[in-house]
Amino acid sequence: MRTIDWVNGAVEIIDQTALPGELRVLRLHTVGELIAAIQSLAVRGAPALGVAGAFGVALAARVHHDDPVALEVAVRKIETARPTAVNLARGALRAARLLPLGPDAVLIEACVIRDEEIVASQAMAAIGADLVTELCGPRPRLLTHCNTGGLAAVTIGTALGVVGELHRRGGLGSVIASETRPLLQGARLTSWELNQWGVEHRVAVDSAGPFLMARGEIDAVILGADRICANGDVINKIGTYSHALGARRAGIPFLVVAPESTVDLDTPGGDQVEIEDRGAAEVTAYGDAVNPAFDITPHDLVTAIVTDRRVIRLDHGEKP
Amino acid sequence: MRTIDWVNGAVEIIDQTALPGELRVLRLHTVGELIAAIQSLAVRGAPALGVAGAFGVALAARVHHDDPVALEVAVRKIETARPTAVNLARGALRAARLLPLGPDAVLIEACVIRDEEIVASQAMAAIGADLVTELCGPRPRLLTHCNTGGLAAVTIGTALGVVGELHRRGGLGSVIASETRPLLQGARLTSWELNQWGVEHRVAVDSAGPFLMARGEIDAVILGADRICANGDVINKIGTYSHALGARRAGIPFLVVAPESTVDLDTPGGDQVEIEDRGAAEVTAYGDAVNPAFDITPHDLVTAIVTDRRVIRLDHGEKP
Repeated sequence: MRTIDWVNGAVEIIDQTALPGELRVLRLHTVGELIAAIQSLAVRGAPALGVAGAFGVALAARVHHDDPVALEVAVRKIETARPTAVNLARGALRAARLLPLGPDAVLIEACVIRDEEIVASQAMAAIGADLVTELCGPRPRLLTHCNTGGLAAVTIGTALGVVGELHRRGGLGSVIASETRPLLQGARLTSWELNQWGVEHRVAVDSAGPFLMARGEIDAVILGADRICANGDVINKIGTYSHALGARRAGIPFLVVAPESTVDLDTPGGDQVEIEDRGAAEVTAYGDAVNPAFDITPHDLVTAIVTDRRVIRLDHGEKP
Repeated sequence: MRTIDWVNGAVEIIDQTALPGELRVLRLHTVGELIAAIQSLAVRGAPALGVAGAFGVALAARVHHDDPVALEVAVRKIETARPTAVNLARGALRAARLLPLGPDAVLIEACVIRDEEIVASQAMAAIGADLVTELCGPRPRLLTHCNTGGLAAVTIGTALGVVGELHRRGGLGSVIASETRPLLQGARLTSWELNQWGVEHRVAVDSAGPFLMARGEIDAVILGADRICANGDVINKIGTYSHALGARRAGIPFLVVAPESTVDLDTPGGDQVEIEDRGAAEVTAYGDAVNPAFDITPHDLVTAIVTDRRVIRLDHGEKP
């Protein structure tokens, strides 16, 4: 099953706001519907957002093929629907380069992007599982954050794809899914995917991660990225930085798994990235809130980044 | 208004599970009701638990004054109703020492413990506000965790009492209340108390704390303790350790405020303290969880501890 796909002239997504209660598929026929799905996090995860951006331009190309101004406005709206993950704008712009060749060419490019993400997930799972085994030995006890499974990509996923691969190899010790407030992608989505895969696991509140590491209960942290900067800084779901501080103090590896499509060499460092604030309502019913959806993990806290093509050992001084 | 008191032959508490929706007062007539209130966190916070332990023994002394075996069992149940905060057992045992003199003597001792906590809160507020001003200068932007206000004590509170005192002095910059998963004592209780006091504030998910510190938005972290060990290790609500790691990396003071009744010189270090695991149901409806209710912050991450009698500058090598 694919998290996002093009089916009979529309974009189909698994509605991630309805999980784990209900496995509901949404058909998105317009750019407006697609943008609403992106902004409500019905579709989320950096690789999936790249595919969503490209399919969005494919939708726009069909509707506005005889109105270049409307088309440009639509592409711009898709590109900027959320600011932090580089994949969204990148997927949209890559598909938009085919606009002069007509809607069919755009759709073909969007499908190529989708297929590339599927292949990238397979590659990351294999490379990542090898690295975890090399660094941690047999049966590692892993902590992951947010959701980086098939739901964040098209199939398989990034960091959670590595967890799944270790499970298939019979080499997984245990998994803790950090719940990931405020929207609970860990407790809702990661837990649901691990159950689908038959992987036993436990959920923990986000702030327990560093303490569980200090107690010696975690061998490595493994999670995804929304953007990887040229200097190796990692932009990812809020809470990532806390886990990185915990891993450093505990002396365990801190591993980031993301496709090359998430590596952004045009952004020198994390402080250049706009961090989306998603408002108070997600956090509390009782008043005002500050709600950064992402944080910046400085490159010196990252042991290694696994992409679909390579392992970047930041702890050995390598750079993206 | 007092969080816990003895009124007309019973213990009255503000039911903290009902806030902020409802300000409900519970009257507890039996040891069983008192223990249930402690275990459900209807009454919570280290200083308040000390008073609850003492009043519990006063209840037991009235009911079982002619049955020493039943009395001993009851005292033991109160003492061990929750394992982590030293105050509970200490308050219960201090009141129990008066048992040979009869129920009235026990009740008087329990009321003395209550009054001592009120006086201790007043002293901590003054000493703590002076220290924050000394370390941070005027109008500090503070982050606090869990609830350490009047609800955690009898009146005023510990760390939040310091925040309130800075507000009264006109010297408070801003406050962020860390929501404190899983039971949201920050979002529910701290936010409610700050509203009562007219102190503007924002709530943040727990894992955002270290990132807000890294962004330069926090001048100091100030929070409470459930137990302070002889070496200066601090046992406090889960999430405290993450904030301490964030404060260290950001180079800002990490301040702990707790009465002398929380200092436990009989416990050499944090690894000797039993950390309560409160089970999966508090964390997730979707499966298994690991749920440590407290964590251990090593003494080297603590700038200073403020008690009702002194400032212990751990950063200068001082010890409790």
